[in-house]
Amino acid sequence: MSKLENLNPLFYPKAVAVIGATDNSFKHSNWYMRSILKRGFPKEHLYPINPNEERVLGLKAYSRVQDAPEPIDQAIVSVPKKVIKQIIKDCVEAKVKFAVIFTSGFSESDQEPEEGKKLEKELLEIISGSNTRIVGPNCMGVYSFEGGLSIPYMYNPPENGPVSFASQSGGHTVGLASMADFWANIQFNKIVSYGNGIDLEVTDYLEYFVEDPKTKIINLYVEGIKNGPRFFRTLREACKVKPVIVWKGGWTSGGSRATLSHTGSLAGSNQIWGTVFKQSGAIQVYSMEELYEVTLAFLRCRTPRGFNAAILGGGGGHAVVSTDECESGGLKIPAFSPKTKEKLSKIVPDIGTGIANPIDASYFVYNDMSMYSKLLEVVEKDPKIDIIILQHEAMNSERNDLLFNILKEAKPKLEKPFVMILNPSGGPIQYTPEMEAERLKLFKRYLNDNFLIYPSIYRASNAIYKMVQYYKFLERHGKSEKAPETVLKMA
Amino acid sequence: MSKLENLNPLFYPKAVAVIGATDNSFKHSNWYMRSILKRGFPKEHLYPINPNEERVLGLKAYSRVQDAPEPIDQAIVSVPKKVIKQIIKDCVEAKVKFAVIFTSGFSESDQEPEEGKKLEKELLEIISGSNTRIVGPNCMGVYSFEGGLSIPYMYNPPENGPVSFASQSGGHTVGLASMADFWANIQFNKIVSYGNGIDLEVTDYLEYFVEDPKTKIINLYVEGIKNGPRFFRTLREACKVKPVIVWKGGWTSGGSRATLSHTGSLAGSNQIWGTVFKQSGAIQVYSMEELYEVTLAFLRCRTPRGFNAAILGGGGGHAVVSTDECESGGLKIPAFSPKTKEKLSKIVPDIGTGIANPIDASYFVYNDMSMYSKLLEVVEKDPKIDIIILQHEAMNSERNDLLFNILKEAKPKLEKPFVMILNPSGGPIQYTPEMEAERLKLFKRYLNDNFLIYPSIYRASNAIYKMVQYYKFLERHGKSEKAPETVLKMA
Repeated sequence: MSKLENLNPLFYPKAVAVIGATDNSFKHSNWYMRSILKRGFPKEHLYPINPNEERVLGLKAYSRVQDAPEPIDQAIVSVPKKVIKQIIKDCVEAKVKFAVIFTSGFSESDQEPEEGKKLEKELLEIISGSNTRIVGPNCMGVYSFEGGLSIPYMYNPPENGPVSFASQSGGHTVGLASMADFWANIQFNKIVSYGNGIDLEVTDYLEYFVEDPKTKIINLYVEGIKNGPRFFRTLREACKVKPVIVWKGGWTSGGSRATLSHTGSLAGSNQIWGTVFKQSGAIQVYSMEELYEVTLAFLRCRTPRGFNAAILGGGGGHAVVSTDECESGGLKIPAFSPKTKEKLSKIVPDIGTGIANPIDASYFVYNDMSMYSKLLEVVEKDPKIDIIILQHEAMNSERNDLLFNILKEAKPKLEKPFVMILNPSGGPIQYTPEMEAERLKLFKRYLNDNFLIYPSIYRASNAIYKMVQYYKFLERHGKSEKAPETVLKMA
Repeated sequence: MSKLENLNPLFYPKAVAVIGATDNSFKHSNWYMRSILKRGFPKEHLYPINPNEERVLGLKAYSRVQDAPEPIDQAIVSVPKKVIKQIIKDCVEAKVKFAVIFTSGFSESDQEPEEGKKLEKELLEIISGSNTRIVGPNCMGVYSFEGGLSIPYMYNPPENGPVSFASQSGGHTVGLASMADFWANIQFNKIVSYGNGIDLEVTDYLEYFVEDPKTKIINLYVEGIKNGPRFFRTLREACKVKPVIVWKGGWTSGGSRATLSHTGSLAGSNQIWGTVFKQSGAIQVYSMEELYEVTLAFLRCRTPRGFNAAILGGGGGHAVVSTDECESGGLKIPAFSPKTKEKLSKIVPDIGTGIANPIDASYFVYNDMSMYSKLLEVVEKDPKIDIIILQHEAMNSERNDLLFNILKEAKPKLEKPFVMILNPSGGPIQYTPEMEAERLKLFKRYLNDNFLIYPSIYRASNAIYKMVQYYKFLERHGKSEKAPETVLKMA
């Protein structure tokens, strides 16, 4: 059986039971019911399980999962720890395919970790030899746009997306869904929060996402793994097929200790993890921002030939600092060719300006923003340049419109990747939260119009650098220099 | 003559001339006039110089600076490059103390750098042996709250501040004044943008700021220097007296090339600069954000004994990632003592929570935010902990008020430094620029109420770590462990 058939019922279940379901809207089980219904799961196949309830959210409740009138693909288990063993025994008896255990207080407990470990072992013994697999415990379960599943407290976007995410943290699934939508217009296809991962672990989800035709880019948040060699083998094959971006939690010594309290995981040496990621071609990131920013590069950045960027815009000090920012992110800022400089000198007056790369056209470009079209045309032709970055300050709405329209017209003429940065305007007026909101609205306008835009040059450089590194990795493994089909190119 | 007497007339001039002044409000010279008047410089001592004007902004204009009716301390020179030599000769003849040259196109020119270098040499010959000193060229001059001077396009706050800034970039003075006010409520006492620094350079301003009783903390932005050994000697002495926070522009190889186009500076090896900063006790930062964030730590953070922090708040995945963030910024997150853990176990239920450090009180603390007072009281007493960080999500305004009031009451009882972080709330509702503005308003509320607050744990950790490092440096040099008197302690 392929991995796809194995886990399909988890992401596309025909029938779902929520064990511990109640009408009390302060209870997580109630949130689960509402999340799933909101995401469109058919209520005629959703079964609340609770011996003390007749109906939950208007649906007929059953005493035990064994009593449900059809086979259950996924049972969401939100019950007190003291009854968990009996509930999992029920799941096994009912031939539930996946028990998703929200309940916590196992090996991750700071107060009784030994008892928690023992209980995890007992659960594994209960499912041993059965057809029931465990997701969790201490997890938030599954989001699947087409499967009609969602995670409580998570943002449910109106659109499906090309990215799938397996996360050892439930909080990060909630955070990422929200922040990736805001800062990068990224939506998800499937998400699984797998917590302590005592049975199914990250490797299982990774295998599935590699085969899943709906998943174009894989995001992982991992704290620790049970079977290292298997993970490494799987990751190595996965990266040849799709980009795998891994956020390893607990990469500092304190963070490594904290994973114990969170998912009972042994985080392991960051050096070993780093080597695993490097050798397999996985892209390691160190924060949630980096996770969605690198993903954004894969979704929107045309594949550049190399690491050399040109920067347009910003004042003189900005030029120096933007170069520092850019180079510390990975991309390089080479001097333009003499031919390019000659052409630029005919566009940019020699008064407090710079044309060596970055191009600092000083206030001349504020007075005539169409200068950017000319500059872009010249820079695009410099054979040294692989990527073009344009930075500008957010201004008043009239001037913002003007620049937006100029760039919207210029963008389709460019063959090289084009990246936009919108700086806050440090001007004579006191900066306020309202001005920042205006800047972010403009940021969203570019994002919604399919521009590749980042909050800063450093972040852009870092994200694109990591993407280019991945394509270099594919080249070394005999894959095309171009983006693989599996990666959407929307730019 | 002490350095103070030397440069006092630059920052507190009795009479100022603006050479090249016109009524055309698109000209920089006009902006200079207006900036200075706005900052409160007495108009009866401000002299527009222009042979083609009778009056400028209503003030009587003079043909040459020699014709001004009183001795000129500072002449702001905003004239075309082709007349600059004659104008500086005029300044020498008029015994102008400081010629602040805004005019650009000297050694920093990408188009005619050799000619620019020659012109700089000629200017130095013109002032040689005279009483006239040059600030610039290619600079934006001086801001001085009490001296009634300001830099065009810069935010003019209603309050004076304890920080002085010498910057090789004019753009950065404008940017820093605005962003330091917004993100850190920092205002400046004196600022000088000194551009190519052909005569007076960073070392001169540093010497002055060290002696200046109004300057408590020194900020520098440097691209290159003419006299390295003198800078090193001065910096070494300066750091024993006041914190000197240095942002070195051009620390990457591309950035180093870019300094040539900006201020005609040879940036030099980053390694050498790093050694100079380390040996002298200066605090090196790598971005504008870091510059004001480290400054904020000096202004608001009680001097901690060491680098060990406790983190309160945030979910389980957050706890791991916050620890990673914090430790990568420099501070450490040690496990709490058994005694502390025992006390915490009586406050935090053992259901999906963590008490090992970070404290993840899960949704229990959302339901009862007064739990934070109890947690703070316990953590404060752990002898391992030097610094307390509390992170929370921005919520609805009623709950935000509640948390604010709880923390406002708890803060004065704490002896250890207390740092606040406000995360965006990644919840079920789509995140919007308006929600971000609300979060920033709340951020400003904490800031305005004298909380030490940072945009992220990483940034807090990095800023405080660098501050503690400075105090350790002072200790090694026989200075008190406590903050020197010269540093304001407002927390």
